Amino acid sequence: MTAVAPEHVRPEQIVAARAALSERTPLVQCLTNSVVQTITANVLLAAGASPAMVDNVHESAAFAQLASAVLVNVGTLDDGKARAMSLAAESAHRNGTPWVLDPVAVGGLEFRTRVARELLQHAPTVVRGNASEVLGLAGAGAGGRGVDSTDGVEEALVAAREIADRTGGAVAVSGVVDVIVHGGRTVRVSGGHPLLTRTTGAGCSLGALVAAYAAVAEDPLVAAVAAHVHVAVAAERAAAQGVGPGTFAIRWLDELDAVDADAVRDDLARSGRIA
Amino acid sequence: MTAVAPEHVRPEQIVAARAALSERTPLVQCLTNSVVQTITANVLLAAGASPAMVDNVHESAAFAQLASAVLVNVGTLDDGKARAMSLAAESAHRNGTPWVLDPVAVGGLEFRTRVARELLQHAPTVVRGNASEVLGLAGAGAGGRGVDSTDGVEEALVAAREIADRTGGAVAVSGVVDVIVHGGRTVRVSGGHPLLTRTTGAGCSLGALVAAYAAVAEDPLVAAVAAHVHVAVAAERAAAQGVGPGTFAIRWLDELDAVDADAVRDDLARSGRIA
Amino acid sequence: MTAVAPEHVRPEQIVAARAALSERTPLVQCLTNSVVQTITANVLLAAGASPAMVDNVHESAAFAQLASAVLVNVGTLDDGKARAMSLAAESAHRNGTPWVLDPVAVGGLEFRTRVARELLQHAPTVVRGNASEVLGLAGAGAGGRGVDSTDGVEEALVAAREIADRTGGAVAVSGVVDVIVHGGRTVRVSGGHPLLTRTTGAGCSLGALVAAYAAVAEDPLVAAVAAHVHVAVAAERAAAQGVGPGTFAIRWLDELDAVDADAVRDDLARSGRIA
Repeated sequence: MTAVAPEHVRPEQIVAARAALSERTPLVQCLTNSVVQTITANVLLAAGASPAMVDNVHESAAFAQLASAVLVNVGTLDDGKARAMSLAAESAHRNGTPWVLDPVAVGGLEFRTRVARELLQHAPTVVRGNASEVLGLAGAGAGGRGVDSTDGVEEALVAAREIADRTGGAVAVSGVVDVIVHGGRTVRVSGGHPLLTRTTGAGCSLGALVAAYAAVAEDPLVAAVAAHVHVAVAAERAAAQGVGPGTFAIRWLDELDAVDADAVRDDLARSGRIA
Repeated sequence: MTAVAPEHVRPEQIVAARAALSERTPLVQCLTNSVVQTITANVLLAAGASPAMVDNVHESAAFAQLASAVLVNVGTLDDGKARAMSLAAESAHRNGTPWVLDPVAVGGLEFRTRVARELLQHAPTVVRGNASEVLGLAGAGAGGRGVDSTDGVEEALVAAREIADRTGGAVAVSGVVDVIVHGGRTVRVSGGHPLLTRTTGAGCSLGALVAAYAAVAEDPLVAAVAAHVHVAVAAERAAAQGVGPGTFAIRWLDELDAVDADAVRDDLARSGRIA
Repeated sequence: MTAVAPEHVRPEQIVAARAALSERTPLVQCLTNSVVQTITANVLLAAGASPAMVDNVHESAAFAQLASAVLVNVGTLDDGKARAMSLAAESAHRNGTPWVLDPVAVGGLEFRTRVARELLQHAPTVVRGNASEVLGLAGAGAGGRGVDSTDGVEEALVAAREIADRTGGAVAVSGVVDVIVHGGRTVRVSGGHPLLTRTTGAGCSLGALVAAYAAVAEDPLVAAVAAHVHVAVAAERAAAQGVGPGTFAIRWLDELDAVDADAVRDDLARSGRIA
């Protein structure tokens, strides 16, 4: 298959972002849910970034000034974490640190939905969620089923565009085919593997990787697309080894490391992955 | 060896529960200790369930109404988590959502012992712990050594029956041979592997798997036996690969996925595992 | 290469400590950051110790009396954890339980720097950190970059000796070559592998392993050296399998189990690892 470059993002930009991530080792501050802290840190390390889980109210704002990027993921919230997230997001926005909002399970649960919507005012560089979460964040949809989406990606497209317009950032809706919007631009990323949904934290780690890429790519669309491509290529290579869900998660980390700029270039030249 | 069906649970019931777990993908809300959240989520995903770690005071009761089952595990408690657990257990009981209590390290430590005993009033469908924990919950025994049992399973049998009588649910005492009681019935499950004690969260994940089975099997005895059988068969298959404790934990996840209803049927037909 | 025994620690002492760890299964209470709780528990289990993550204000002091050793790691602090740590350290010191302080990211961040410095008054048996953290704890240096050291180990030597003089315990500065000081003694441990820095929690787990060794070796210098040797030998064996960062972390656990007293003796007889 001959790859067709999409209108709004060029393969060279994705390849350059992958190279920059390894070269610059961005320091990614993560305020994320306790279930996925370990896998998130390991995904960032495997990809070439440096994670720092600084998520308390005393330190989160100051660190958001120093960090290369910030991830805010509202799973396993409590009042203290919610306050620390608000402080970090506000500081990131004020100091020009790119930051990513991952609205885990937003829509169905009142507390985190309120917290996530308030965080939108601090203009996240990228919002990344599944279709139900993006619909929930926008105030539409019926809410998902815990962290699982019950809505299709394309159904969330209007909501994604509405959020992107409001924040000025990009919105990535992850699914079988991921859709990423920014301004008037829309890019789709295909591939990945169902085993990603059989290991906890794959989606949340993708959010952290979007933050890492946002630290090295000026264009939020390029950052989000690069992270989704990186995860998808690594997942396909790991799954090709014919493994169960436990081994898959480990090999996926190996492949996130192995998939360098050259591997991304090769993939994009033949896969038709982005459209 | 010819398998002898125990008096109170038939192999077909265990096989049917395994099949139902894969078919229905029960949504299991976990309020569990922070050490084991990741492995617990991955065990549920590998087995075919859907985990959701909704454990804050604002959301735990509402989610317990929606969830297929709830796990409450009192390791790494703090005041906020204790309150969220009480709300979730009360909501589960009131709404008919099956729920499992895992009294981690109860007996030796006052705070969690008090919290766990108060949770008993919400009539857990199944209590799952080791011998020291079950003795501690019943107010007997000297307390374990952290999460390790210093008492034998059979010594805990009277305590287990007393708790089961009080709650109307089942009580599972995990050990070299697991003993599960409900009403006047007693079933023993043998097998598993010592490597399960060399990886953190294997016991806690078993508690979560009991909850997943309780969502698909009406009889709490069947649910508890099915979870213990599933874990034991998978552990034996993983350990048979001659691996160290790190690799074992990963292969165990692979095998929890691979051990489907057919594998359970084959095992029960030849192993004499339940008695 | 012929091994030259350093002046202050004899290979037989390290070998004996490794054997004692397996024989006695010390109960190690861990008050540690949420990112690394799982890997920390698994490292302790693989090495032959028994972890117990008892870290709430109601239980931490009482458990520090029962435990064989205590680890206090100030990553992902909040006010409640900080209070529980203070209570545990005070109780450990008063009751003669050896305890280890790991000053994660101390120096650059005010809140945890203050908490860590206050903990020093309870005379930790061993302080273990990277160069930036040890400098930060002593009130010198510019602070690291999250958990990454931006200073060299030898630059931290004066700070390490100053802290050791103040506490009466040992101070271990981990790096490419680790330097461990106690009283007038200085020992260097070489080896390990860069992949240890590509998996989250390797350094934090090393701190927990120092605590486990402090439970079985009277001399804090021996305890710290033994833990650093154990980690380094296991890491080299795991990395020799030519694996990526995900698989490395798993094989490292396998090797922490496999590296027994005989393996340590063999290594020290030929490696020149300690000097």
